[in-house]
Amino acid sequence: MNLLATFLAAAFSTSLAAAAPAPPSPADIAAAAPAGAWRTVAPENLMLVETPRGTMAIEMAPDFAPAHIAAIRALVAAGRFDGGAITRVQDNYVVQWAARPGPDKVLASSGAAAVAADGAAAVAAGSTAAPGGVAVGTGPGAAHPAVLPAEYERSARGLKIVRLGSNDTYARSGFWNGWPVAQDRKTNTAWLAHCYASVGVGRDDPPDTGDGSELYAVIGHGPRHLDRNITMVGRVIDGIADFSALPRGTGPLGFYKTPAEQTVITRVRFAGVGDPRFEVLDSDSPAFAAYLKARANRTGFFIRPAGATDLCNVQVPVRRVTK
Amino acid sequence: MNLLATFLAAAFSTSLAAAAPAPPSPADIAAAAPAGAWRTVAPENLMLVETPRGTMAIEMAPDFAPAHIAAIRALVAAGRFDGGAITRVQDNYVVQWAARPGPDKVLASSGAAAVAADGAAAVAAGSTAAPGGVAVGTGPGAAHPAVLPAEYERSARGLKIVRLGSNDTYARSGFWNGWPVAQDRKTNTAWLAHCYASVGVGRDDPPDTGDGSELYAVIGHGPRHLDRNITMVGRVIDGIADFSALPRGTGPLGFYKTPAEQTVITRVRFAGVGDPRFEVLDSDSPAFAAYLKARANRTGFFIRPAGATDLCNVQVPVRRVTK
Repeated sequence: MNLLATFLAAAFSTSLAAAAPAPPSPADIAAAAPAGAWRTVAPENLMLVETPRGTMAIEMAPDFAPAHIAAIRALVAAGRFDGGAITRVQDNYVVQWAARPGPDKVLASSGAAAVAADGAAAVAAGSTAAPGGVAVGTGPGAAHPAVLPAEYERSARGLKIVRLGSNDTYARSGFWNGWPVAQDRKTNTAWLAHCYASVGVGRDDPPDTGDGSELYAVIGHGPRHLDRNITMVGRVIDGIADFSALPRGTGPLGFYKTPAEQTVITRVRFAGVGDPRFEVLDSDSPAFAAYLKARANRTGFFIRPAGATDLCNVQVPVRRVTK
Repeated sequence: MNLLATFLAAAFSTSLAAAAPAPPSPADIAAAAPAGAWRTVAPENLMLVETPRGTMAIEMAPDFAPAHIAAIRALVAAGRFDGGAITRVQDNYVVQWAARPGPDKVLASSGAAAVAADGAAAVAAGSTAAPGGVAVGTGPGAAHPAVLPAEYERSARGLKIVRLGSNDTYARSGFWNGWPVAQDRKTNTAWLAHCYASVGVGRDDPPDTGDGSELYAVIGHGPRHLDRNITMVGRVIDGIADFSALPRGTGPLGFYKTPAEQTVITRVRFAGVGDPRFEVLDSDSPAFAAYLKARANRTGFFIRPAGATDLCNVQVPVRRVTK
């Protein structure tokens, strides 16, 4: 870093801007969005995953996965994630964490085939990439039902989805209430899309559908092929960078080989008084429409705007509200 | 990790497989691909970026950026990257590194607006996200030309591009010689796509086009909006996980605030005798066609194959060849 050079460069940029004022960037648009364009994240839907590395703030989406989120709330209330661990970090894929095994023996292992192995990565690493699994228990004392319904998609009835406005490889796509979603008009269903920072429920091979005791966040290119194959419960809206920077696991599927490599989860709780508050740019707002358009048509640094954007590249703005 | 549970889960998977044998997975197909389906990475195109954290092996693509790669070779030969540093790690975006400033004063700063800030991230972090810049020098003693032609795209004439077979949001897309590429039939041009692990040349705002002294690798969702806006020179084919796991920079655009936070580059060189050898699955091979189809139509873990894949989700297989 050379401060003088940085200063000169800033001056250079300023002179360029004076010569040809650029339209507002996506960041400019979000920064200028009025108070009414922001949706407050309800504290009761804000799950905080606390570790010595930092805290992930995850907004849960009970409109899409009510049963799983109820199960996760029960696990959180029972303290089952406290003393759990981040058991898996697979590059360009997921960070995954698990609750402690409980008296109900529901949670037997952290070896979940939560998200199928990435073929290319597995080949590159020379691993055999045999999927592991999570035994699904049925014993007494479960903090939540041992078998939950799959919540891979829901009825789209009543969902006002703002269109992406670009072709999507996988499905008709857009935004509902600030969430990136895709839909199927034939079945009239909708689902949360797998984008960077999306949070889903680990599961074993079918017929298992997961029980909420193993969760993962996407830390790579949006694995949209997982859409409608896994229950999505929310997305990380703050703090993911402390977790995406964790050392990758060296075992199959990025699982850590030893407990010593894992990051301990100190505590998981839902937000309350005194916690940071967040807002998400409301996808029904004119500001979001302008933001979306600007994301597809970048200027300034860009000499050739793409004229389109894929769903996961939109990155719905989130801001921490100073109290 | 519970070994018993893992064993039971494996047994469970085996019994499932016996009941309904699954078609080969993408990883299976790559693992079974015959020797003739693999293209050897030429050592003279394999750039090794050595740091105390690990080594990145980058395959360069001189078919797409001959002038920039020649300039980078000259910088490497002059030892200008040795003692350089990783100056920027922006979450869900890029790892960027810079050569040492040289006697030609070409390389004045690491504050490049190499890749425009991500709007959402900037808002979330509350940063002002003002682009910095790199002073482009013209002094004597330059190890390479101070001004290079933009190599944002090239003629598609003579390129046999294997079609992706799915709709792409940004352009007609596919693969050439194992590289993910996109093309414009009107202009008859083609370019390397920005996917995870793609390597590009940092530049300042236009009219700057970069000089090869600052390079970046993508460590997040493929920022395809950068396609045709930056000179792409290759992709990381080994070792990226040591770099994608670096702590994120806390300054604007993910630049580190102090040199102490940077990771020093010990040495950069091109591969020679005794270095690991790599092979890339040839996109013209039947094995690749089967791999591509399997990536779009996952089975086993997946209950609902997507039936499509976006370009960056294909992840062309690479393998290290045991010597």
